[in-house]
Amino acid sequence: MNGARSLLTTLAEAGVDVCFANPGTSEMHFVAALDTVGGMRAVLTLFEGVATGAADGYARIAGTPAAALLHLGPGLGNGLANLHNARRAHTPMIVVVGDHATYHKKYDAPLESDIDAVAGTVSGWVRRSTRPEEVAADTAAALDAARRGAVATLILPADVSWSDGADSAQSAAASAEPAVDGEAVRAAAETLYSGERTVLLIGGDATRRPGLDAAVRIAEATGARVLCETFPARLERGAGVPAVERLAYFAEAAAEQLAGARHLILAGTASPVSFFAYPDKPSDLVPDGCAVHLLAPHRGAAAALQRLADDVAPGTTASLAPAARPELPSGELTAFTAAAVIGALLPDDAIVVDESNTAGVGIAAATAGAPAHDVLTLTGGAIGYGLPAAIGAAIAAPHRPVLALQADGSAMYTISALWTHARENLDVTTVIFDNGAYDILRIELQRVGATSGTEPGPKARELLDLGSPAIDFVQIAEGLGVPGRRVHTAEEFAAALADSLAEPGPHLIDAVVPSLLG
Amino acid sequence: MNGARSLLTTLAEAGVDVCFANPGTSEMHFVAALDTVGGMRAVLTLFEGVATGAADGYARIAGTPAAALLHLGPGLGNGLANLHNARRAHTPMIVVVGDHATYHKKYDAPLESDIDAVAGTVSGWVRRSTRPEEVAADTAAALDAARRGAVATLILPADVSWSDGADSAQSAAASAEPAVDGEAVRAAAETLYSGERTVLLIGGDATRRPGLDAAVRIAEATGARVLCETFPARLERGAGVPAVERLAYFAEAAAEQLAGARHLILAGTASPVSFFAYPDKPSDLVPDGCAVHLLAPHRGAAAALQRLADDVAPGTTASLAPAARPELPSGELTAFTAAAVIGALLPDDAIVVDESNTAGVGIAAATAGAPAHDVLTLTGGAIGYGLPAAIGAAIAAPHRPVLALQADGSAMYTISALWTHARENLDVTTVIFDNGAYDILRIELQRVGATSGTEPGPKARELLDLGSPAIDFVQIAEGLGVPGRRVHTAEEFAAALADSLAEPGPHLIDAVVPSLLG
Repeated sequence: MNGARSLLTTLAEAGVDVCFANPGTSEMHFVAALDTVGGMRAVLTLFEGVATGAADGYARIAGTPAAALLHLGPGLGNGLANLHNARRAHTPMIVVVGDHATYHKKYDAPLESDIDAVAGTVSGWVRRSTRPEEVAADTAAALDAARRGAVATLILPADVSWSDGADSAQSAAASAEPAVDGEAVRAAAETLYSGERTVLLIGGDATRRPGLDAAVRIAEATGARVLCETFPARLERGAGVPAVERLAYFAEAAAEQLAGARHLILAGTASPVSFFAYPDKPSDLVPDGCAVHLLAPHRGAAAALQRLADDVAPGTTASLAPAARPELPSGELTAFTAAAVIGALLPDDAIVVDESNTAGVGIAAATAGAPAHDVLTLTGGAIGYGLPAAIGAAIAAPHRPVLALQADGSAMYTISALWTHARENLDVTTVIFDNGAYDILRIELQRVGATSGTEPGPKARELLDLGSPAIDFVQIAEGLGVPGRRVHTAEEFAAALADSLAEPGPHLIDAVVPSLLG
Repeated sequence: MNGARSLLTTLAEAGVDVCFANPGTSEMHFVAALDTVGGMRAVLTLFEGVATGAADGYARIAGTPAAALLHLGPGLGNGLANLHNARRAHTPMIVVVGDHATYHKKYDAPLESDIDAVAGTVSGWVRRSTRPEEVAADTAAALDAARRGAVATLILPADVSWSDGADSAQSAAASAEPAVDGEAVRAAAETLYSGERTVLLIGGDATRRPGLDAAVRIAEATGARVLCETFPARLERGAGVPAVERLAYFAEAAAEQLAGARHLILAGTASPVSFFAYPDKPSDLVPDGCAVHLLAPHRGAAAALQRLADDVAPGTTASLAPAARPELPSGELTAFTAAAVIGALLPDDAIVVDESNTAGVGIAAATAGAPAHDVLTLTGGAIGYGLPAAIGAAIAAPHRPVLALQADGSAMYTISALWTHARENLDVTTVIFDNGAYDILRIELQRVGATSGTEPGPKARELLDLGSPAIDFVQIAEGLGVPGRRVHTAEEFAAALADSLAEPGPHLIDAVVPSLLG
């Protein structure tokens, strides 16, 4: 068989059966092999950044990797921002980047570029297959790396793809969970027994029920405070799930949450730092005099927490968030009334893809007692994640409703994702928080002291404004095959959201809200 | 002054007075400085790939660099594809990538990534300012590199941007043209005198009138054949301009153009190679037994050709393309009738940004005798170039009409560029060639032999299809503030194009054409 078939067979036999693709000429044998090798669903996107974001969203929900098929260096570049987010989420992903034929590279044809260098910046594993005979083993190695929580990038030259001589597939064994570090568990237990103020900061695989359950048991038994990292890859929450507060985005607020801690135990996450630097403010959010203890890295954090809970909280059960929904609000649509509508109407077992940025300020509180749901967040801060991730989430869980909460400015980065929502008839409701501005930057412009306390000048204001012309998200959505509706009041939003959730398939609601700055 | 002001002052004093921007938090001091430092126009784009493509289009028309302001590694990634095109075009460009504060980088905050590695793949010059005192000199060095035809990337950490201590600006001297290589000119003259069949392949700065004039004089005096590289950065053509044929995109056609040549003289371009590799076809397009001679690299090629023309064709003048327009066609709108409409109506002194791909097959012939115009092409093959480049071209030449000829699939890569067309009220008419498919890939799927001569299977066909759902470019354009109109016949297209060209400001025409494959 040729290299392309070897790759597809190896992937499909290992259970990787979805590929988000945006192919070009150098990937045509991969494309052709989709029809000769069974078991792979190929989902077309109109931009590589949609393909990589979709593969990320898929893996966060499915727990197993999807593949993303990209075209040469520029295609990898287009996919890079969402690969950055995937790297930060420790998402398992197989990225296949087609390249020129091995013998063609020396000619420096127009599309020639240094794929390896770019791939290295976002990949935990990169390899270039140089002969068809290598493809099956390279694919198996990529799978192994991906399953350990990496973006695994396999560069596949066109001639390796089209030449015969490839092995039949080798199935890759599923990677074992890392062993719990007993010494780290004992040290954490001692810290918790010390009686000194302790914060348990969780992330990685600890933000799903087993990890949350253990973390809350530990906190309730010892008086420690549990916090979740600011941008978890996948956080389970809602009624019936042990509730944890997230570390705040703004450093000042995060510092308050951590104030007075003498110990910080990390389970599945890194020591907290400010998202950006600000003049005369610390980058490191660990309070002075606070000792940091690593219980477990991103994988195996839930298991380590369970062991720790059995040590320090034997026989206990965690408190669960009670069911509670806000009343449906009326009147002006704001970030807060919109959040209340979402809290009131969130369906059972929803997946919330949250790239709402400033407009999402009220959502966590409003949905705390809504039916249990998963939240996927912008782990790497590279905007343009939400609409693509919603594709992957909906394909991974076709019977779960997906709610994409999306800031307007960020939505425009990968707006063509809506077309794939329509093409695949995905049950995704997109809510655009349409405040006509890069509102976060209006806030940051002040926070970084760039205007020295004075009002920003006209050029600065103009660069943060999206209102001239106003972006008509309803027209754009309909142009891409997704029915859209614009709402200006809480009542209109509630009606539109209820309708969208009741009707299968994709919808978009353009929720016009004021800037947080008024 | 702080680093941001130093940067802006140095740029503005050197005549770099346009910046295409998509800023984030780490660039807020740059944004604020726009109001305190005069002389810089900041143009907001909704995606970094639009900013970099616009800066490329600007420089190709203005002849001087614009700046592009990008946000950290993911922003650079988003801009990478069009930087790749700019690198291939030898476009002068200043790319400013904001980074985390120097002291913040070690904390590996969520947006931390290896900017330097990614920048290195597309930049002829990369530097990271580490102190405000360095910014003026670094900016001057970037300017010097850019003017020599490079993407010059300056990485500006947030604290370097906000800290005082920067020098006042140093003005950078304009770079001198490279000297003509007299030995290469003599060798080329000898080759031309040999009487052996010779092709003169031109590119770089030789595709504007002085270079074209010299090349055609040489060809007419010596019997050599002159060809232009397949994807020139900027080609002047039309009535009154010496006409040169472009080397074909498909290798088979290019091989025919070069067949029988014993000598190939390169002026401003590299030795021709196949755009992609194909099984059992050569990558190198130079015929067997043909000697290759380099007359001049991309800069200075026009001057070298002029010297050569004075040697081998003294006192001659080049033939000029006669004025000739096609008749306005009627009936079905196809790639060819659409081309005839464009040829019939192309206004004086137009800038044609050509990313029409397969649908553009008839345009060169149909516009050969239209009023003189410039054509900007997809130099690096990274699609999503046309709509952004049109922004830059229109800003560089506000009194010239810009016609963006745009394939549908490629348009979707950077569709948000239309919003900047509207925001800046640019005189850009966008024609979408809407065939509902990645038509080039349908052709390439066959050419690479991926389906072994049989019909492609359903999965392969589906991955090359854009018709389900159909993309409504009129709705999308209007959602982004650009009036749109869909046309199905040659008459409708002619009426829409005439109206669009007559009315200042941006317009989009969705020209529904059949696939070339029928």
